[in-house]
Amino acid sequence: MPGNSIGKVFRVTTFGESHGPLVGVVIDGVPAGLPLSEEDIAFELSFRRPGRYLVSGRRERDQPKIVSGLFNGKTTGAPIAVIVNNEDVISSLYEETKYTPRPGHADLPYIQKYGFENWDYRGGGRASARETVSRVIAGTVAKKLLLLRRILIAGYLKSMGNIKVEGKVDFDSAICAKYSPVRAPSKDIENSYTSLLKSVFDEGDSVGGTAEFIVRNTPTGLGEPVFDKIKADLAKSLLSIPAVTGFEYGLGFEGAKMKGSEANDQIVMENGRPRYSKNSAGGILGGLTNGEDVIIRIAFKPTSSIRKPQNTVNVKTGESTTISVKGRHDPCVAIRGIAVGEAMIALTFADHMLRAGYVSLVKLEKDEVEEIERNWGEYKSLCQQALSAGSQ
Amino acid sequence: MPGNSIGKVFRVTTFGESHGPLVGVVIDGVPAGLPLSEEDIAFELSFRRPGRYLVSGRRERDQPKIVSGLFNGKTTGAPIAVIVNNEDVISSLYEETKYTPRPGHADLPYIQKYGFENWDYRGGGRASARETVSRVIAGTVAKKLLLLRRILIAGYLKSMGNIKVEGKVDFDSAICAKYSPVRAPSKDIENSYTSLLKSVFDEGDSVGGTAEFIVRNTPTGLGEPVFDKIKADLAKSLLSIPAVTGFEYGLGFEGAKMKGSEANDQIVMENGRPRYSKNSAGGILGGLTNGEDVIIRIAFKPTSSIRKPQNTVNVKTGESTTISVKGRHDPCVAIRGIAVGEAMIALTFADHMLRAGYVSLVKLEKDEVEEIERNWGEYKSLCQQALSAGSQ
Amino acid sequence: MPGNSIGKVFRVTTFGESHGPLVGVVIDGVPAGLPLSEEDIAFELSFRRPGRYLVSGRRERDQPKIVSGLFNGKTTGAPIAVIVNNEDVISSLYEETKYTPRPGHADLPYIQKYGFENWDYRGGGRASARETVSRVIAGTVAKKLLLLRRILIAGYLKSMGNIKVEGKVDFDSAICAKYSPVRAPSKDIENSYTSLLKSVFDEGDSVGGTAEFIVRNTPTGLGEPVFDKIKADLAKSLLSIPAVTGFEYGLGFEGAKMKGSEANDQIVMENGRPRYSKNSAGGILGGLTNGEDVIIRIAFKPTSSIRKPQNTVNVKTGESTTISVKGRHDPCVAIRGIAVGEAMIALTFADHMLRAGYVSLVKLEKDEVEEIERNWGEYKSLCQQALSAGSQ
Amino acid sequence: MPGNSIGKVFRVTTFGESHGPLVGVVIDGVPAGLPLSEEDIAFELSFRRPGRYLVSGRRERDQPKIVSGLFNGKTTGAPIAVIVNNEDVISSLYEETKYTPRPGHADLPYIQKYGFENWDYRGGGRASARETVSRVIAGTVAKKLLLLRRILIAGYLKSMGNIKVEGKVDFDSAICAKYSPVRAPSKDIENSYTSLLKSVFDEGDSVGGTAEFIVRNTPTGLGEPVFDKIKADLAKSLLSIPAVTGFEYGLGFEGAKMKGSEANDQIVMENGRPRYSKNSAGGILGGLTNGEDVIIRIAFKPTSSIRKPQNTVNVKTGESTTISVKGRHDPCVAIRGIAVGEAMIALTFADHMLRAGYVSLVKLEKDEVEEIERNWGEYKSLCQQALSAGSQ
Repeated sequence: MPGNSIGKVFRVTTFGESHGPLVGVVIDGVPAGLPLSEEDIAFELSFRRPGRYLVSGRRERDQPKIVSGLFNGKTTGAPIAVIVNNEDVISSLYEETKYTPRPGHADLPYIQKYGFENWDYRGGGRASARETVSRVIAGTVAKKLLLLRRILIAGYLKSMGNIKVEGKVDFDSAICAKYSPVRAPSKDIENSYTSLLKSVFDEGDSVGGTAEFIVRNTPTGLGEPVFDKIKADLAKSLLSIPAVTGFEYGLGFEGAKMKGSEANDQIVMENGRPRYSKNSAGGILGGLTNGEDVIIRIAFKPTSSIRKPQNTVNVKTGESTTISVKGRHDPCVAIRGIAVGEAMIALTFADHMLRAGYVSLVKLEKDEVEEIERNWGEYKSLCQQALSAGSQ
Repeated sequence: MPGNSIGKVFRVTTFGESHGPLVGVVIDGVPAGLPLSEEDIAFELSFRRPGRYLVSGRRERDQPKIVSGLFNGKTTGAPIAVIVNNEDVISSLYEETKYTPRPGHADLPYIQKYGFENWDYRGGGRASARETVSRVIAGTVAKKLLLLRRILIAGYLKSMGNIKVEGKVDFDSAICAKYSPVRAPSKDIENSYTSLLKSVFDEGDSVGGTAEFIVRNTPTGLGEPVFDKIKADLAKSLLSIPAVTGFEYGLGFEGAKMKGSEANDQIVMENGRPRYSKNSAGGILGGLTNGEDVIIRIAFKPTSSIRKPQNTVNVKTGESTTISVKGRHDPCVAIRGIAVGEAMIALTFADHMLRAGYVSLVKLEKDEVEEIERNWGEYKSLCQQALSAGSQ
Repeated sequence: MPGNSIGKVFRVTTFGESHGPLVGVVIDGVPAGLPLSEEDIAFELSFRRPGRYLVSGRRERDQPKIVSGLFNGKTTGAPIAVIVNNEDVISSLYEETKYTPRPGHADLPYIQKYGFENWDYRGGGRASARETVSRVIAGTVAKKLLLLRRILIAGYLKSMGNIKVEGKVDFDSAICAKYSPVRAPSKDIENSYTSLLKSVFDEGDSVGGTAEFIVRNTPTGLGEPVFDKIKADLAKSLLSIPAVTGFEYGLGFEGAKMKGSEANDQIVMENGRPRYSKNSAGGILGGLTNGEDVIIRIAFKPTSSIRKPQNTVNVKTGESTTISVKGRHDPCVAIRGIAVGEAMIALTFADHMLRAGYVSLVKLEKDEVEEIERNWGEYKSLCQQALSAGSQ
Repeated sequence: MPGNSIGKVFRVTTFGESHGPLVGVVIDGVPAGLPLSEEDIAFELSFRRPGRYLVSGRRERDQPKIVSGLFNGKTTGAPIAVIVNNEDVISSLYEETKYTPRPGHADLPYIQKYGFENWDYRGGGRASARETVSRVIAGTVAKKLLLLRRILIAGYLKSMGNIKVEGKVDFDSAICAKYSPVRAPSKDIENSYTSLLKSVFDEGDSVGGTAEFIVRNTPTGLGEPVFDKIKADLAKSLLSIPAVTGFEYGLGFEGAKMKGSEANDQIVMENGRPRYSKNSAGGILGGLTNGEDVIIRIAFKPTSSIRKPQNTVNVKTGESTTISVKGRHDPCVAIRGIAVGEAMIALTFADHMLRAGYVSLVKLEKDEVEEIERNWGEYKSLCQQALSAGSQ
């Protein structure tokens, strides 16, 4: 049954395989009038791109081409379709391992589900991280829509292996991490991450990590009671990312150790508006946003593809064997995963903004278009500042 | 926009408020021929019922009435509808606090979203844990369907506050916990939980907890690639439960600290079938089940309703005030939440069983009906044994 | 797979069988603040009720009970659930014919699909026209929502057998038909219909008919391009009604005989607004409403249940036999079908009003509530006037 | 809100505009193992292609490119994506008429809905018949899947203007029509259609028509009770086609004139299987297929684009004006519409085959693949024979 779409109003469908001619995405449900360009998309894709530090050797230029839904630089209300050609693909690498499913990968379950004869073994097919290009494209559109309300999302690498950022990281540091090659919120932590990364890479191994995301300027009341709570839809969105194995918001698992009197947020009046004293709820109460920053953390397992030999079986002969995964792989998928996480959060928020009618379902007015253009400009210079700060 | 339904094939819609005349559920998409009775449902509801130990004082008999979709003791392919009348409802308690939203509750976001004038303040309305009665009913139907393949789900209380069950708990101990009033997998841990519960109750406080679930006998290949991965749908289902703030499967957050060579599961041949050496993936690879037990953990925040006074604001006057939540509340919602968690997992698995056509979408054959009846009998005696063991 | 729900935002799910304890409906997606009462629903149900002239002998009081989603006379944003107990049910009538499927009925296909052993043969189960009570209930809610924009729907019996209303019927005459026991738009035609009805009834036979519906005050731009055109969704809604075998709008099948120069509507300026000269498009262009009255016609086959003996087979013995359907049946289902048709049109329009954000997806403002209350009052007095006019 | 997708399991999403770079489609939910080639798709597209007789001058080679979901000539279970580049596009033609919406077209409603500033006026954008290329592509996949059960669909032009094929047309004649340039089921009627076509073309006018479709070898029990009846889903699918204004099945509107004793189908035993004596129900009872041929008719309005001058308004100036639509347009859209109608019927049946689990939701077995290949070969030679017969 179909599983390649997500969202009820902001409806995203991805297609294309790692080693096929292209990857692509259709985004249906976007109101007319949203300013959008291939450059915008390329900007966001640049934060997902590998090759910035040690990471995956596949050089993907990722040149997006908008093929539907745009006219005179603005969306028309028609479905937006964007494709990105696959380049620098070396499928031959996969020939020799096609009978030996890689531990930690989707290989064996796919073979068992669809039959070996129907399995696209080249680079994992749809299960490849390559599919997430489509998500980041859709995320760009979502992020632009959210800028109508100045909603911004910033993710950073909270931990890598046993190294962890202690204390609370504020939004400005988090967005700074955008330009760190390891998505670290400070130079110190960047150095620690880089050393660890280098060491696992040299060992032919990989390492896991966690990401934290901060969503700023959320309105109150986003999310739908009962099953489509925003926390539920965020959990689904984020767990749909390859290698993500855990989700929490607010106090999360830590809160499960607490007493109610510790964990509960007191409600206080601030400038005539009810606020929460410590945002222990991570911006979500009763499954709805409460107006505070939404705080989310996710866990990534270590990259499954490692050079170190591992045991597996040959599905043709039924015999035990070992495999050393060559290819070109990031030693810590969590780094690139942050751009994907931001995209999935943006999709979920955009969907719920539309579901609540907080953004027009049909078309944006002229002043709304200008607001988005202005805020997109600010967002980009925020990123540029981050870059400068990061390069010091 | 509608948010009261979940599942694509096994489609569940709940309705009814905490202090309305009844709560109910419609389950669409169940094949004809499934044996079902009000007694079956009452059996499952009994594990959700409060009042077993210190817990919520509301005495709910929870007598389910099947009003659609059943004929001669079996489902007909028509939507199954079940209602449970609300009894022992004391709405007057809520009159005095209707202007003072309770910290940690959905009150304020609901008021902000729907308007104070449209807010059913009596017991939280739809945001009440009362709504989960509908989920456990639907879960019963799902569990019976899963028994066609002998799939069983067992949840237990992994931790309460700082008390934690160490080491791996096997399926048999987990199902034993069903009859512990605090869902503990052993007598020792039951005693610890009970003491803690008593102490927080006496303080007018509450405590958080985590639950672990083991799903046994899962087939391979359940889940749909990309967005409807089984891990994503499980995360959504479980995060849709009130008070749940985190989800992980397999190694989860712990795995994010590891290296690939530690975390990856080696594939080995066992009795002619490829197996995983340590099930570190928690039964899920590439978003599909891999045939090993599915292992899930969720975090529950402490019960938000506590007697201890907390700060809040009066939404009518805009003034700060304090609130001491009286009503009748479990000091640890995680306990009752386990029955709800099992139900949500069952719904998700049933949905995916049908989505993959592993169960007929139209009607069960005679031998399938018998298989379910036999396995339901075994399941119940497994529970009974647990009871005996638990009472020692 | 589930098929008991319709609508994407205004989401309706029906449940209950003809001879079960009750029929019911859940309506999810209705904004908070809509004034609604059991009396409103009973008012609309009265136009569906049989027994006004010759028609079905089953006396159904159809007392609706709202069990979810209402607080202080207004909707809360929670799912609205309404149930109606089944009364005056005589299931024994169906015992003798349970092995002999009735010609023209769902009996045989249901048996073939779900298995004879799972078939609820009492009164057709879910395939019974009794299910349409749930639709009219949901239609009431939809109609009230549409009154926010003064959108009104009026249906009448355009033809019965070979008797046909010639010429164009305007909205006022159409709504008058509401109080005719045979839904005729004039006294003359009422007399003709009544005579025909009496004659087929005496013969133990039945007769087909067509209904026309006029939707007034539609805004422009309702409907979504490509698959969810309003004409497509209307066709689906109306064809989902038992006994409906055809759908057309505007010129419909008659237009297929014309030339473009005849059929095309010229666009003209009228009071500063572009209008269409003759509304040959029936209010729909490119799948979107164009602001003119929407004009729809549907065909109903003759009631399948007739006293005249017909050939069938005994599914137990495999032998040919004859059947004379007793029970209590309308000789022309089109009459009662008009109330159901209006309801389905209302659901479709309400869904598209919400899909386009022409009505708030979350809550109605105070002045909107008053507008609806005022327009509902006017609508009811329009109906009363129709009654007086009709009784002359 | 999104409206560019159709189907619940066989899920089709189309994208691309008439004058954009390409049109495309994503088909999600197709089981793995289905043999598919670009040649298969081109074969089906050839029946939609204009230019066979008088019809639209735009020369579209329509070379499909499969870019996702195929490996070694068979589907993989991943979403199938196919694109077709737009060629021979002359957008300048539309510059001069961009302020003067064409009568009978989507222009004005689109402008009113999305704003003039967001309107892609080049060739109708998404409202163009060009979008139906995507439907025929998806229809090819659906048709191949249906061949697993030998289900075949044949459409022909039942009437053009006042010329009508009298009497019942059998399946073999209907499929013959595939190779008539005017989709006529016999040489005689072909000549009549051609003369009429030539005459309206010379007048700068256009003409309407009706199409009839016969679906052979349908299993019993396809369709889901209540809202997703197969008749309802067929009506939606077919009314979603541009220019379609009416739908009926079986006796349709003609049956509304009859008595029950005439219209009802008697049930008779034939070769040990219950059959219907005259198929007056058009293969559908209770919303489910009854095993007889499904018979559907739809009405197409005359092509809206005509050279004859028509009145319209200039949306910029608000003044009345006239328009003579140049471009390249078929004088009778019903002809090309038949290929689109067949595709939509195929999609609907494929969706319901999967919804009922009559085809595997996951993967086809080896013998099933062979069955499809064999039947596709037979279908193609049936078409070739038709061609030979047609050329006599």
